[in-house]
Amino acid sequence: MNLKSLSQQIKIKESFLCVGLDIDLSKIPTHILNEKDPIFVFSKSIIDATHKYAVAYKPNLAFFEAYGIEGWKAFEKTIDYINKNYPNHFIIADAKRGDIGNTSGRYAKAFFENYGVDAVTISPYMGRDSIEPFLSFKDKYAVLLTLTSNEGSRDFQYIEQKGVPVYEKVLRLSTKFENAHNLMYVVGATKSENLKSIRNIVPDSFLLIPGVGAQGGNLKEVVLNGINSNCGLIVNSSRGIIYASQGNDFVEKAAEKAFELQKEMSEYLKLYKII
Amino acid sequence: MNLKSLSQQIKIKESFLCVGLDIDLSKIPTHILNEKDPIFVFSKSIIDATHKYAVAYKPNLAFFEAYGIEGWKAFEKTIDYINKNYPNHFIIADAKRGDIGNTSGRYAKAFFENYGVDAVTISPYMGRDSIEPFLSFKDKYAVLLTLTSNEGSRDFQYIEQKGVPVYEKVLRLSTKFENAHNLMYVVGATKSENLKSIRNIVPDSFLLIPGVGAQGGNLKEVVLNGINSNCGLIVNSSRGIIYASQGNDFVEKAAEKAFELQKEMSEYLKLYKII
Repeated sequence: MNLKSLSQQIKIKESFLCVGLDIDLSKIPTHILNEKDPIFVFSKSIIDATHKYAVAYKPNLAFFEAYGIEGWKAFEKTIDYINKNYPNHFIIADAKRGDIGNTSGRYAKAFFENYGVDAVTISPYMGRDSIEPFLSFKDKYAVLLTLTSNEGSRDFQYIEQKGVPVYEKVLRLSTKFENAHNLMYVVGATKSENLKSIRNIVPDSFLLIPGVGAQGGNLKEVVLNGINSNCGLIVNSSRGIIYASQGNDFVEKAAEKAFELQKEMSEYLKLYKII
Repeated sequence: MNLKSLSQQIKIKESFLCVGLDIDLSKIPTHILNEKDPIFVFSKSIIDATHKYAVAYKPNLAFFEAYGIEGWKAFEKTIDYINKNYPNHFIIADAKRGDIGNTSGRYAKAFFENYGVDAVTISPYMGRDSIEPFLSFKDKYAVLLTLTSNEGSRDFQYIEQKGVPVYEKVLRLSTKFENAHNLMYVVGATKSENLKSIRNIVPDSFLLIPGVGAQGGNLKEVVLNGINSNCGLIVNSSRGIIYASQGNDFVEKAAEKAFELQKEMSEYLKLYKII
Protein backbone atom coordinates (compact mmCIF):
# COMPACT_ATOMS: atom_id res chain seq x y z
CA MET A 1 0.00 0.00 0.00
CA ASN A 2 1.41 3.38 -0.93
CA LEU A 3 1.10 6.80 0.67
CA LYS A 4 -1.37 8.01 -1.95
CA SER A 5 -3.75 5.23 -0.94
CA LEU A 6 -3.10 6.03 2.71
CA SER A 7 -4.11 9.65 2.08
CA GLN A 8 -7.31 8.45 0.41
CA GLN A 9 -8.10 6.20 3.35
CA ILE A 10 -7.59 9.10 5.74
CA LYS A 11 -10.28 11.00 3.85
CA ILE A 12 -12.64 8.04 3.52
CA LYS A 13 -12.37 7.03 7.17
CA GLU A 14 -12.02 10.59 8.48
CA SER A 15 -9.20 9.30 10.62
CA PHE A 16 -5.41 9.35 10.86
CA LEU A 17 -5.30 6.89 13.71
CA CYS A 18 -2.70 4.17 13.98
CA VAL A 19 -3.24 1.45 16.57
CA GLY A 20 -0.02 0.26 18.19
CA LEU A 21 0.13 -3.47 18.77
CA ASP A 22 2.42 -3.65 21.83
CA ILE A 23 1.17 -6.96 23.03
CA ASP A 24 2.15 -7.90 26.55
CA LEU A 25 0.73 -11.22 27.77
CA SER A 26 0.74 -9.96 31.34
CA LYS A 27 -1.74 -7.23 30.40
CA ILE A 28 -4.25 -9.03 28.22
CA PRO A 29 -7.51 -10.53 29.54
CA THR A 30 -6.65 -13.75 31.33
CA HIS A 31 -9.19 -15.90 29.47
CA ILE A 32 -7.20 -15.36 26.26
CA LEU A 33 -4.12 -16.91 27.82
CA ASN A 34 -5.78 -20.31 27.50
CA GLU A 35 -5.92 -19.98 23.72
CA LYS A 36 -3.34 -21.83 21.64
CA ASP A 37 -1.87 -18.62 20.25
CA PRO A 38 -2.85 -15.86 22.70
CA ILE A 39 -0.71 -13.16 21.06
CA PHE A 40 -2.40 -13.59 17.70
CA VAL A 41 -5.88 -14.06 19.19
CA PHE A 42 -5.50 -10.80 21.09
CA SER A 43 -4.07 -8.95 18.04
CA LYS A 44 -6.87 -10.21 15.83
CA SER A 45 -9.54 -9.14 18.34
CA ILE A 46 -8.06 -5.66 18.59
CA ILE A 47 -7.77 -5.33 14.82
CA ASP A 48 -11.35 -6.48 14.24
CA ALA A 49 -12.54 -4.05 16.90
CA THR A 50 -10.68 -1.00 15.62
CA HIS A 51 -10.30 -1.35 11.85
CA LYS A 52 -13.23 0.97 11.13
CA TYR A 53 -11.60 3.80 13.06
CA ALA A 54 -7.95 3.28 12.17
CA VAL A 55 -5.98 3.67 8.95
CA ALA A 56 -2.81 1.96 10.18
CA TYR A 57 -1.45 -0.66 12.56
CA LYS A 58 1.97 -0.57 14.20
CA PRO A 59 3.12 -3.86 15.71
CA ASN A 60 6.18 -3.26 17.90
CA LEU A 61 8.70 -6.01 17.25
CA ALA A 62 10.14 -5.92 20.79
CA PHE A 63 6.90 -7.38 22.09
CA PHE A 64 6.76 -10.15 19.50
CA GLU A 65 10.49 -10.92 19.72
CA ALA A 66 10.20 -11.28 23.49
CA TYR A 67 8.16 -14.45 22.93
CA GLY A 68 10.77 -16.09 20.69
CA ILE A 69 9.76 -18.24 17.73
CA GLU A 70 6.13 -18.21 18.89
CA GLY A 71 6.22 -14.43 18.92
CA TRP A 72 7.57 -14.30 15.36
CA LYS A 73 4.89 -16.71 14.20
CA ALA A 74 2.26 -14.48 15.82
CA PHE A 75 3.79 -11.44 14.10
CA GLU A 76 3.65 -13.20 10.73
CA LYS A 77 0.05 -14.26 11.31
CA THR A 78 -0.92 -10.75 12.40
CA ILE A 79 0.53 -9.17 9.25
CA ASP A 80 -1.08 -11.81 7.04
CA TYR A 81 -4.40 -11.28 8.79
CA ILE A 82 -4.34 -7.53 8.19
CA ASN A 83 -3.17 -7.85 4.58
CA LYS A 84 -5.87 -10.41 3.80
CA ASN A 85 -8.82 -8.93 5.66
CA TYR A 86 -8.05 -5.23 5.74
CA PRO A 87 -5.83 -4.56 2.71
CA ASN A 88 -6.54 -0.82 2.94
CA HIS A 89 -4.71 -0.54 6.25
CA PHE A 90 -1.11 0.62 6.30
CA ILE A 91 1.24 -1.58 8.35
CA ILE A 92 4.30 -0.17 10.12
CA ALA A 93 6.71 -2.64 11.68
CA ASP A 94 8.07 -0.72 14.65
CA ALA A 95 11.46 -2.40 14.65
CA LYS A 96 13.93 0.52 14.92
CA ARG A 97 16.46 -1.39 12.84
CA GLY A 98 19.62 -0.18 11.12
CA ASP A 99 23.03 -1.56 10.21
CA ILE A 100 25.78 -0.95 7.66
CA GLY A 101 24.75 -0.90 3.99
CA ASN A 102 24.15 -4.41 2.72
CA THR A 103 23.26 -5.66 6.18
CA SER A 104 20.48 -3.06 6.43
CA GLY A 105 19.34 -4.40 3.07
CA ARG A 106 18.75 -7.75 4.76
CA TYR A 107 16.42 -6.20 7.30
CA ALA A 108 14.59 -4.31 4.56
CA LYS A 109 14.09 -7.46 2.51
CA ALA A 110 12.86 -9.39 5.55
CA PHE A 111 10.24 -6.84 6.51
CA PHE A 112 9.08 -5.68 3.09
CA GLU A 113 9.27 -8.87 1.07
CA ASN A 114 9.01 -11.77 3.52
CA TYR A 115 6.55 -10.29 6.00
CA GLY A 116 4.83 -7.82 3.67
CA VAL A 117 4.64 -4.73 5.84
CA ASP A 118 4.41 -1.27 4.25
CA ALA A 119 6.91 0.55 6.44
CA VAL A 120 9.64 -0.06 9.02
CA THR A 121 10.95 2.29 11.69
CA ILE A 122 14.70 2.95 11.42
CA SER A 123 17.34 4.43 13.70
CA PRO A 124 19.50 7.09 11.99
CA TYR A 125 22.65 6.83 14.15
CA MET A 126 24.74 4.96 11.56
CA GLY A 127 23.95 7.45 8.81
CA ARG A 128 23.03 7.46 5.17
CA ASP A 129 24.26 4.03 4.07
CA SER A 130 22.33 2.41 6.91
CA ILE A 131 19.07 4.05 5.78
CA GLU A 132 19.13 4.09 1.97
CA PRO A 133 18.78 0.30 1.60
CA PHE A 134 15.28 0.68 3.06
CA LEU A 135 14.33 3.27 0.44
CA SER A 136 14.80 1.27 -2.74
CA PHE A 137 11.55 -0.74 -2.55
CA LYS A 138 8.61 0.56 -4.56
CA ASP A 139 5.68 1.67 -2.35
CA LYS A 140 7.58 0.71 0.81
CA TYR A 141 8.68 3.24 3.41
CA ALA A 142 11.30 3.84 6.07
CA VAL A 143 10.12 5.78 9.10
CA LEU A 144 13.17 7.52 10.47
CA LEU A 145 13.46 8.13 14.21
CA THR A 146 13.84 11.89 14.34
CA LEU A 147 12.65 13.34 17.64
CA THR A 148 11.32 10.66 19.94
CA SER A 149 8.74 10.96 22.70
CA ASN A 150 10.80 9.52 25.56
CA GLU A 151 12.81 11.38 28.16
CA GLY A 152 16.12 10.07 26.76
CA SER A 153 15.44 11.95 23.53
CA ARG A 154 17.06 14.93 25.30
CA ASP A 155 20.41 13.13 25.58
CA PHE A 156 21.62 13.14 21.98
CA GLN A 157 18.85 14.37 19.66
CA TYR A 158 19.18 17.99 20.84
CA ILE A 159 22.97 18.26 20.57
CA GLU A 160 23.48 21.43 18.55
CA GLN A 161 26.11 22.38 16.02
CA LYS A 162 25.88 26.00 14.89
CA GLY A 163 22.36 26.18 16.26
CA VAL A 164 21.14 23.10 14.40
CA PRO A 165 20.18 20.16 16.63
CA VAL A 166 20.97 16.58 15.66
CA TYR A 167 17.32 15.74 14.92
CA GLU A 168 17.16 18.62 12.44
CA LYS A 169 20.39 17.46 10.81
CA VAL A 170 18.81 14.03 10.44
CA LEU A 171 15.81 15.61 8.73
CA ARG A 172 17.80 17.92 6.48
CA LEU A 173 20.31 15.33 5.34
CA SER A 174 17.65 12.69 4.79
CA THR A 175 15.88 14.83 2.20
CA LYS A 176 18.99 14.40 0.03
CA PHE A 177 18.99 10.59 0.23
CA GLU A 178 18.29 8.54 -2.86
CA ASN A 179 14.55 7.79 -3.01
CA ALA A 180 13.89 10.26 -0.21
CA HIS A 181 10.23 10.20 -1.26
CA ASN A 182 10.03 6.86 0.55
CA LEU A 183 10.87 8.48 3.90
CA MET A 184 8.55 9.20 6.79
CA TYR A 185 9.57 10.53 10.21
CA VAL A 186 8.89 9.66 13.84
CA VAL A 187 8.19 12.76 15.92
CA GLY A 188 6.94 12.25 19.46
CA ALA A 189 3.62 13.87 20.37
CA THR A 190 5.35 15.17 23.49
CA LYS A 191 7.48 17.37 21.22
CA SER A 192 4.71 19.36 19.58
CA GLU A 193 6.64 22.60 20.27
CA ASN A 194 9.17 21.38 17.69
CA LEU A 195 6.63 20.19 15.14
CA LYS A 196 6.32 23.52 13.36
CA SER A 197 10.00 23.77 12.49
CA ILE A 198 10.04 20.10 11.53
CA ARG A 199 7.07 20.68 9.23
CA ASN A 200 8.98 23.52 7.58
CA ILE A 201 11.85 21.19 6.69
CA VAL A 202 9.67 18.35 5.40
CA PRO A 203 6.42 20.06 4.38
CA ASP A 204 5.03 17.16 2.39
CA SER A 205 6.21 14.14 4.35
CA PHE A 206 4.15 11.89 6.54
CA LEU A 207 4.98 12.13 10.24
CA LEU A 208 4.32 9.20 12.55
CA ILE A 209 3.41 10.61 15.94
CA PRO A 210 3.56 8.28 18.93
CA GLY A 211 3.00 9.34 22.50
CA VAL A 212 -0.58 10.59 22.44
CA GLY A 213 -2.39 9.46 25.56
CA ALA A 214 -0.37 7.26 27.91
CA GLN A 215 2.87 9.15 27.22
CA GLY A 216 1.26 12.56 27.71
CA GLY A 217 1.12 13.99 24.19
CA ASN A 218 -1.79 16.22 23.21
CA LEU A 219 -3.62 15.56 19.92
CA LYS A 220 -4.81 19.13 19.46
CA GLU A 221 -1.28 20.52 19.77
CA VAL A 222 0.03 17.91 17.35
CA VAL A 223 -2.56 18.82 14.72
CA LEU A 224 -2.11 22.55 15.20
CA ASN A 225 1.64 22.33 14.57
CA GLY A 226 1.99 19.33 12.31
CA ILE A 227 -0.91 19.00 9.89
CA ASN A 228 -0.40 19.76 6.19
CA SER A 229 -2.82 20.12 3.28
CA ASN A 230 -2.84 16.37 2.81
CA CYS A 231 -3.08 15.66 6.58
CA GLY A 232 0.48 14.24 6.60
CA LEU A 233 0.02 12.81 10.08
CA ILE A 234 -0.40 9.32 11.44
CA VAL A 235 -1.05 9.48 15.16
CA ASN A 236 -0.41 6.32 17.12
CA SER A 237 -2.10 5.14 20.28
CA SER A 238 -1.18 1.80 21.81
CA ARG A 239 -1.90 1.24 25.49
CA GLY A 240 -4.80 3.69 25.62
CA ILE A 241 -6.70 1.51 23.15
CA ILE A 242 -5.49 -2.06 23.47
CA TYR A 243 -5.52 -2.09 27.27
CA ALA A 244 -8.60 0.12 27.71
CA SER A 245 -10.04 -2.82 29.61
CA GLN A 246 -8.48 -6.03 30.86
CA GLY A 247 -11.89 -7.61 31.33
CA ASN A 248 -14.19 -9.52 29.00
CA ASP A 249 -15.27 -6.21 27.48
CA PHE A 250 -11.78 -5.38 26.15
CA VAL A 251 -13.01 -5.52 22.53
CA GLU A 252 -15.84 -3.04 23.14
CA LYS A 253 -13.61 -0.76 25.19
CA ALA A 254 -10.85 -0.78 22.55
CA ALA A 255 -13.41 0.08 19.87
CA GLU A 256 -14.81 2.86 22.06
CA LYS A 257 -11.40 4.44 22.64
CA ALA A 258 -10.50 4.20 18.93
CA PHE A 259 -13.85 5.72 18.01
CA GLU A 260 -13.31 8.62 20.43
CA LEU A 261 -9.99 9.44 18.77
CA GLN A 262 -11.46 9.02 15.30
CA LYS A 263 -14.27 11.48 16.10
CA GLU A 264 -11.77 14.04 17.31
CA MET A 265 -9.63 13.49 14.23
CA SER A 266 -12.64 13.88 11.95
CA GLU A 267 -13.27 17.31 13.45
CA TYR A 268 -9.70 18.39 12.77
CA LEU A 269 -9.82 17.10 9.20
CA LYS A 270 -12.92 19.21 8.65
CA LEU A 271 -11.47 22.23 10.42
CA TYR A 272 -8.42 22.16 8.16
CA LYS A 273 -10.60 21.51 5.09
CA ILE A 274 -8.92 18.21 4.27
CA ILE A 275 -12.33 16.58 4.01
CA MET B 1 29.79 -15.54 30.85
CA ASN B 2 31.18 -12.36 32.40
CA LEU B 3 33.96 -10.03 31.31
CA LYS B 4 36.37 -11.38 33.93
CA SER B 5 36.08 -14.82 32.37
CA LEU B 6 36.45 -13.25 28.92
CA SER B 7 39.71 -11.61 30.04
CA GLN B 8 40.94 -14.97 31.31
CA GLN B 9 40.08 -16.62 28.01
CA ILE B 10 41.96 -13.93 26.13
CA LYS B 11 45.06 -14.86 28.12
CA ILE B 12 44.56 -18.61 27.84
CA LYS B 13 43.90 -18.57 24.10
CA GLU B 14 46.27 -15.68 23.38
CA SER B 15 43.54 -14.21 21.25
CA PHE B 16 40.98 -11.42 21.27
CA LEU B 17 39.32 -12.58 18.09
CA CYS B 18 35.58 -12.52 17.57
CA VAL B 19 34.18 -14.36 14.57
CA GLY B 20 31.21 -12.61 12.99
CA LEU B 21 28.46 -14.95 11.85
CA ASP B 22 26.95 -12.97 8.96
CA ILE B 23 25.50 -15.92 7.17
CA ASP B 24 24.41 -15.33 3.63
CA LEU B 25 23.09 -18.42 1.83
CA SER B 26 24.22 -17.01 -1.51
CA LYS B 27 27.83 -17.08 -0.32
CA ILE B 28 28.14 -20.44 1.41
CA PRO B 29 29.40 -23.60 -0.33
CA THR B 30 26.62 -24.92 -2.54
CA HIS B 31 26.73 -28.47 -1.18
CA ILE B 32 25.51 -27.16 2.20
CA LEU B 33 22.36 -25.78 0.60
CA ASN B 34 21.06 -29.34 0.29
CA GLU B 35 21.13 -29.78 4.07
CA LYS B 36 17.86 -29.50 5.99
CA ASP B 37 19.06 -26.47 7.94
CA PRO B 38 21.87 -24.91 5.89
CA ILE B 39 22.23 -21.78 8.05
CA PHE B 40 22.88 -23.80 11.20
CA VAL B 41 25.05 -26.39 9.43
CA PHE B 42 27.26 -23.61 8.09
CA SER B 43 27.38 -21.78 11.46
CA LYS B 44 28.27 -25.00 13.27
CA SER B 45 31.04 -25.82 10.80
CA ILE B 46 32.55 -22.34 11.16
CA ILE B 47 32.34 -22.48 14.95
CA ASP B 48 33.95 -25.93 15.12
CA ALA B 49 36.70 -24.73 12.80
CA THR B 50 37.51 -21.52 14.63
CA HIS B 51 36.74 -22.04 18.34
CA LYS B 52 40.40 -22.68 19.20
CA TYR B 53 41.43 -19.30 17.84
CA ALA B 54 38.47 -17.17 18.88
CA VAL B 55 37.16 -15.97 22.24
CA ALA B 56 33.82 -14.68 20.96
CA TYR B 57 31.16 -15.12 18.30
CA LYS B 58 28.98 -12.37 16.92
CA PRO B 59 25.90 -13.53 14.99
CA ASN B 60 24.35 -10.60 13.13
CA LEU B 61 20.58 -10.75 13.50
CA ALA B 62 19.88 -9.13 10.12
CA PHE B 63 21.17 -12.24 8.40
CA PHE B 64 19.11 -14.61 10.53
CA GLU B 65 15.98 -12.43 10.43
CA ALA B 66 16.19 -12.31 6.65
CA TYR B 67 15.27 -16.01 6.58
CA GLY B 68 12.14 -15.60 8.70
CA ILE B 69 11.10 -18.24 11.24
CA GLU B 70 13.72 -20.66 9.85
CA GLY B 71 16.37 -18.01 10.42
CA TRP B 72 15.30 -17.49 14.03
CA LYS B 73 15.36 -21.22 14.64
CA ALA B 74 18.87 -21.36 13.21
CA PHE B 75 19.88 -18.44 15.47
CA GLU B 76 18.50 -20.25 18.52
CA LYS B 77 20.27 -23.47 17.55
CA THR B 78 23.53 -21.62 16.96
CA ILE B 79 23.46 -19.98 20.39
CA ASP B 80 22.53 -23.27 22.07
CA TYR B 81 25.33 -25.03 20.21
CA ILE B 82 27.95 -22.52 21.38
CA ASN B 83 26.67 -22.45 24.97
CA LYS B 84 26.63 -26.25 25.17
CA ASN B 85 29.86 -27.08 23.38
CA TYR B 86 31.99 -23.99 23.90
CA PRO B 87 30.74 -22.40 27.14
CA ASN B 88 33.93 -20.34 27.44
CA HIS B 89 33.08 -18.33 24.34
CA PHE B 90 31.43 -14.95 24.69
CA ILE B 91 28.36 -14.45 22.48
CA ILE B 92 27.37 -11.04 21.14
CA ALA B 93 24.01 -10.74 19.38
CA ASP B 94 24.65 -8.01 16.83
CA ALA B 95 21.10 -6.71 16.79
CA LYS B 96 21.50 -2.91 17.12
CA ARG B 97 18.26 -2.71 19.06
CA GLY B 98 16.81 0.12 21.16
CA ASP B 99 13.38 1.48 22.07
CA ILE B 100 11.76 3.48 24.85
CA GLY B 101 12.25 2.22 28.40
CA ASN B 102 10.07 -0.80 29.09
CA THR B 103 10.03 -1.76 25.41
CA SER B 104 13.83 -1.94 25.39
CA GLY B 105 13.45 -4.19 28.42
CA ARG B 106 11.56 -6.62 26.21
CA TYR B 107 14.45 -6.86 23.79
CA ALA B 108 16.90 -7.31 26.67
CA LYS B 109 14.86 -10.12 28.16
CA ALA B 110 14.52 -11.84 24.79
CA PHE B 111 18.23 -11.85 24.07
CA PHE B 112 19.64 -12.40 27.55
CA GLU B 113 17.08 -14.75 29.06
CA ASN B 114 15.33 -16.53 26.18
CA TYR B 115 18.27 -16.92 23.81
CA GLY B 116 21.08 -16.83 26.37
CA VAL B 117 23.58 -14.53 24.68
CA ASP B 118 26.12 -12.59 26.77
CA ALA B 119 25.82 -9.22 25.05
CA VAL B 120 23.66 -7.28 22.60
CA THR B 121 24.62 -4.33 20.40
CA ILE B 122 22.47 -1.25 21.02
CA SER B 123 21.86 2.01 19.15
CA PRO B 124 22.15 5.10 21.39
CA TYR B 125 19.92 7.50 19.43
CA MET B 126 16.96 7.35 21.83
CA GLY B 127 19.12 8.05 24.89
CA ARG B 128 19.52 6.84 28.42
CA ASP B 129 16.14 5.22 29.05
CA SER B 130 16.50 3.16 25.87
CA ILE B 131 19.86 1.78 27.03
CA GLU B 132 19.61 1.27 30.79
CA PRO B 133 17.10 -1.61 30.56
CA PHE B 134 19.90 -3.65 28.93
CA LEU B 135 22.25 -2.98 31.87
CA SER B 136 20.27 -4.48 34.71
CA PHE B 137 21.09 -8.14 34.01
CA LYS B 138 23.94 -9.68 36.00
CA ASP B 139 26.90 -10.68 33.81
CA LYS B 140 25.11 -9.49 30.68
CA TYR B 141 26.34 -6.59 28.57
CA ALA B 142 25.11 -3.88 26.21
CA VAL B 143 27.54 -2.96 23.43
CA LEU B 144 26.75 0.62 22.55
CA LEU B 145 27.23 1.81 18.97
CA THR B 146 29.68 4.66 19.44
CA LEU B 147 31.76 5.30 16.33
CA THR B 148 30.90 2.88 13.57
CA SER B 149 33.09 1.65 10.73
CA ASN B 150 30.82 2.59 7.82
CA GLU B 151 30.92 5.69 5.67
CA GLY B 152 27.61 6.95 7.06
CA SER B 153 29.22 7.25 10.50
CA ARG B 154 30.35 10.72 9.32
CA ASP B 155 26.74 11.92 8.98
CA PHE B 156 25.68 12.25 12.61
CA GLN B 157 28.34 10.76 14.90
CA TYR B 158 30.78 13.63 14.32
CA ILE B 159 28.31 16.48 14.87
CA GLU B 160 30.12 18.71 17.36
CA GLN B 161 28.81 20.83 20.19
CA LYS B 162 31.52 22.97 21.84
CA GLY B 163 34.16 20.76 20.28
CA VAL B 164 32.68 17.51 21.58
CA PRO B 165 31.37 15.19 18.86
CA VAL B 166 28.19 13.17 19.33
CA TYR B 167 30.07 9.87 19.68
CA GLU B 168 32.08 11.31 22.56
CA LYS B 169 28.91 12.60 24.21
CA VAL B 170 27.51 9.09 23.94
CA LEU B 171 30.62 7.74 25.67
CA ARG B 172 30.74 10.39 28.39
CA LEU B 173 27.08 10.27 29.27
CA SER B 174 26.99 6.47 29.23
CA THR B 175 29.58 6.27 31.99
CA LYS B 176 26.97 7.86 34.28
CA PHE B 177 24.24 5.32 33.50
CA GLU B 178 23.05 2.95 36.18
CA ASN B 179 25.10 -0.27 35.97
CA ALA B 180 27.51 1.38 33.54
CA HIS B 181 29.94 -1.45 34.33
CA ASN B 182 27.80 -3.59 32.01
CA LEU B 183 28.59 -1.38 29.02
CA MET B 184 30.92 -2.11 26.15
CA TYR B 185 31.39 0.04 23.03
CA VAL B 186 31.48 -0.49 19.27
CA VAL B 187 34.33 1.43 17.66
CA GLY B 188 35.05 0.72 14.01
CA ALA B 189 38.58 -0.41 13.14
CA THR B 190 38.51 2.18 10.37
CA LYS B 191 38.45 4.85 13.09
CA SER B 192 41.71 3.98 14.83
CA GLU B 193 42.73 7.66 14.77
CA ASN B 194 39.95 8.27 17.30
CA LEU B 195 40.68 5.25 19.47
CA LYS B 196 43.18 7.01 21.71
CA SER B 197 40.74 9.69 22.84
CA ILE B 198 38.01 7.08 23.23
CA ARG B 199 40.34 5.00 25.39
CA ASN B 200 40.94 8.04 27.59
CA ILE B 201 37.22 8.38 28.29
CA VAL B 202 36.62 4.68 28.97
CA PRO B 203 40.03 3.37 30.06
CA ASP B 204 38.77 0.10 31.48
CA SER B 205 35.91 -0.81 29.14
CA PHE B 206 35.89 -3.49 26.51
CA LEU B 207 35.72 -2.17 22.95
CA LEU B 208 34.23 -4.28 20.19
CA ILE B 209 36.09 -3.47 17.01
CA PRO B 210 34.51 -4.47 13.70
CA GLY B 211 35.90 -3.62 10.31
CA VAL B 212 39.29 -5.34 10.34
CA GLY B 213 39.96 -6.95 6.96
CA ALA B 214 37.13 -6.64 4.43
CA GLN B 215 36.19 -3.13 5.59
CA GLY B 216 39.79 -1.89 5.54
CA GLY B 217 40.67 -1.57 9.25
CA ASN B 218 44.22 -2.28 10.37
CA LEU B 219 44.79 -4.54 13.39
CA LYS B 220 48.15 -3.03 14.30
CA GLU B 221 46.73 0.48 14.45
CA VAL B 222 43.78 -0.71 16.51
CA VAL B 223 46.05 -2.35 19.07
CA LEU B 224 48.44 0.59 19.21
CA ASN B 225 45.65 3.02 20.03
CA GLY B 226 43.09 0.89 21.82
CA ILE B 227 44.71 -1.78 23.99
CA ASN B 228 44.65 -1.47 27.78
CA SER B 229 46.40 -3.41 30.54
CA ASN B 230 43.69 -6.04 30.42
CA CYS B 231 43.59 -6.11 26.59
CA GLY B 232 40.11 -4.51 26.58
CA LEU B 233 39.63 -5.30 22.91
CA ILE B 234 37.51 -7.76 21.00
CA VAL B 235 38.34 -7.56 17.32
CA ASN B 236 35.76 -8.95 14.94
CA SER B 237 36.28 -10.48 11.55
CA SER B 238 33.35 -11.84 9.58
CA ARG B 239 33.68 -12.19 5.82
CA GLY B 240 37.48 -12.58 5.89
CA ILE B 241 37.05 -15.80 7.87
CA ILE B 242 33.68 -17.31 7.07
CA TYR B 243 33.92 -16.78 3.32
CA ALA B 244 37.67 -17.43 3.03
CA SER B 245 36.68 -20.16 0.60
CA GLN B 246 33.39 -21.06 -1.01
CA GLY B 247 34.66 -24.51 -1.95
CA ASN B 248 34.73 -27.81 -0.09
CA ASP B 249 37.75 -26.57 1.85
CA PHE B 250 35.83 -23.70 3.52
CA VAL B 251 36.34 -25.21 6.99
CA GLU B 252 40.12 -25.46 6.59
CA LYS B 253 40.36 -22.01 5.06
CA ALA B 254 38.25 -20.43 7.82
CA ALA B 255 40.46 -22.09 10.44
CA GLU B 256 43.57 -20.88 8.62
CA LYS B 257 42.38 -17.26 8.51
CA ALA B 258 41.34 -17.34 12.17
CA PHE B 259 44.70 -18.87 13.10
CA GLU B 260 46.56 -16.13 11.20
CA LEU B 261 44.74 -13.44 13.18
CA GLN B 262 45.23 -15.32 16.45
CA LYS B 263 48.98 -15.54 15.85
CA GLU B 264 49.19 -11.81 15.21
CA MET B 265 47.09 -11.12 18.30
CA SER B 266 49.29 -13.37 20.41
CA GLU B 267 52.31 -11.26 19.42
CA TYR B 268 50.55 -8.07 20.48
CA LEU B 269 49.48 -9.56 23.81
CA LYS B 270 53.11 -10.44 24.48
CA LEU B 271 54.40 -7.08 23.30
CA TYR B 272 52.06 -5.29 25.69
CA LYS B 273 52.91 -7.76 28.48
CA ILE B 274 49.32 -8.93 28.90
CA ILE B 275 50.50 -12.53 28.69
